[in-house]
Amino acid sequence: MSSQASPFEDFAGKWRPRIEAELEGILPLAECAPRSLHGAMRYAMFPGGKRLRPVLALMAAQVTGGDLSAALRPAAGLELLHTYSLIHDDLPCMDDDELRRGRATCHIAFDEATALLAGDALLTLAFEAVASGGGQAVSALARAAGSLGMVGGQVADLEAEGDGQDPDLARLESIHDRKTGALITASLEIGAIAGGSSDERGDLVEFGRLLGRAFQITDDCLDETGSAEELGKRPGADLAKDKLTYPALMGLESSREEAERLSRAAADLAPLICRGLEGSGLDLGLRLLQDVASYAITRTR
Amino acid sequence: MSSQASPFEDFAGKWRPRIEAELEGILPLAECAPRSLHGAMRYAMFPGGKRLRPVLALMAAQVTGGDLSAALRPAAGLELLHTYSLIHDDLPCMDDDELRRGRATCHIAFDEATALLAGDALLTLAFEAVASGGGQAVSALARAAGSLGMVGGQVADLEAEGDGQDPDLARLESIHDRKTGALITASLEIGAIAGGSSDERGDLVEFGRLLGRAFQITDDCLDETGSAEELGKRPGADLAKDKLTYPALMGLESSREEAERLSRAAADLAPLICRGLEGSGLDLGLRLLQDVASYAITRTR
Repeated sequence: MSSQASPFEDFAGKWRPRIEAELEGILPLAECAPRSLHGAMRYAMFPGGKRLRPVLALMAAQVTGGDLSAALRPAAGLELLHTYSLIHDDLPCMDDDELRRGRATCHIAFDEATALLAGDALLTLAFEAVASGGGQAVSALARAAGSLGMVGGQVADLEAEGDGQDPDLARLESIHDRKTGALITASLEIGAIAGGSSDERGDLVEFGRLLGRAFQITDDCLDETGSAEELGKRPGADLAKDKLTYPALMGLESSREEAERLSRAAADLAPLICRGLEGSGLDLGLRLLQDVASYAITRTR
Repeated sequence: MSSQASPFEDFAGKWRPRIEAELEGILPLAECAPRSLHGAMRYAMFPGGKRLRPVLALMAAQVTGGDLSAALRPAAGLELLHTYSLIHDDLPCMDDDELRRGRATCHIAFDEATALLAGDALLTLAFEAVASGGGQAVSALARAAGSLGMVGGQVADLEAEGDGQDPDLARLESIHDRKTGALITASLEIGAIAGGSSDERGDLVEFGRLLGRAFQITDDCLDETGSAEELGKRPGADLAKDKLTYPALMGLESSREEAERLSRAAADLAPLICRGLEGSGLDLGLRLLQDVASYAITRTR
């Protein structure tokens, strides 16, 4: 029994301790040689943030009638992969950020070489964890995280920083669909695959695409309106870097309207995704999907 | 029919074109967006070097009676992984090298961010390719390449550079067994697994350990005695950086004797590894393993 009003946050709160325990078990101990490397990997992983991607993977297993325990290790792998991408994104040759989740970034707390290699090791470990969900799960992750997915989006994002080209919605969407959307969609897919229920993947992929965009627009808006305390990072960083963002392109108000439209479209897919469920399982599935669509645009950090 | 006297170089020469074709097919086209990223990935991959790790994987399939065609894609994955490690190793925060295989390193030819992300994308693509060999192959690669394997060895190697501690053979072996030996052993394992013949893995792992050390000692010796033209990189680089190497620790002559001892010990394992073969398959298997053990210490680049 929980006092939380949100089914999704309720679900997330229930599963987060098991995700933490799984991550704890996957990562080599800090006392294990090389200590600096394992120390840096753990520094970047703990304490964690929302663990959004693992929670989405477990939710996908839930709403497709899958086995959540079987999805737990692949779900944790998604957080390993996400964390590697943050470490490398923060490096001096990339975004050159010194603050992340309210603390020094990995290359500031350790050094650049250690941060680079800690990211490499987390990426490697992510694939080991996701492999327990089977070959299809590995392929889904590789596609989402590789040069045609997340890494490709990072390159396109760097290229777009003040390159003098006119801002353009299609370009912005293409960057974000790859940079953040692909891994959110893969989280849903991998949860369904690893949970043993891969029938509903087409609808889940479309749900992920809409949800990922709603999350990203909200992120962009929060960067302009949030406080450093809420965000755990410097607000206004995107503006300062002349980054291509939704509010920069269409203004705050239109950005929020677009996020609401995407959120509603995602929620509309809930009955399709849950069509294999019945009884209380169906009720919970529908509420989870509708609620995460709402959470994507109402959260404050 | 080949005129080459070495069964291993004959085998390598026969399979290299298929490895190249496989790599060509796996990598996105250079015209595919983001062009800078795919250009950098291809720049680092082509033209290639010896393709030693894929050749070893295919050889392992051959000497354990496996299906070489089934091992081809995972074998190519090993070269993707090896190439990522070279790109990241060359970065300014690591070895800061400007020359590799006789040309500018990736971050010199492109820029640091592109090189970092090209490495990340190649590592990701490596796992996709190896996944076609099954879950055991993915696990073997992740163990060999991760924080307890190759990446751990890189960190230990960086830490050993002029840290004032007395040089020590056990420490040197521990670094190299992880930094280069683990992936050589994994290449043999993955070839056997992907080829469908995983029975002989214990002997193959020991063979890989001995072979990997023989290769590394020979590398260290060549760094002192080779020419830039032969090596495709600056000779004497290890010495200049006060790196812990075999010749630095025990002298050139003793290093060569140790490499010969390891090579003979590896060759002695050939009958055990090939025990499931018969007829001409057995003959070829024995000759391949004995010859690669000899190749490891007689090559000049």
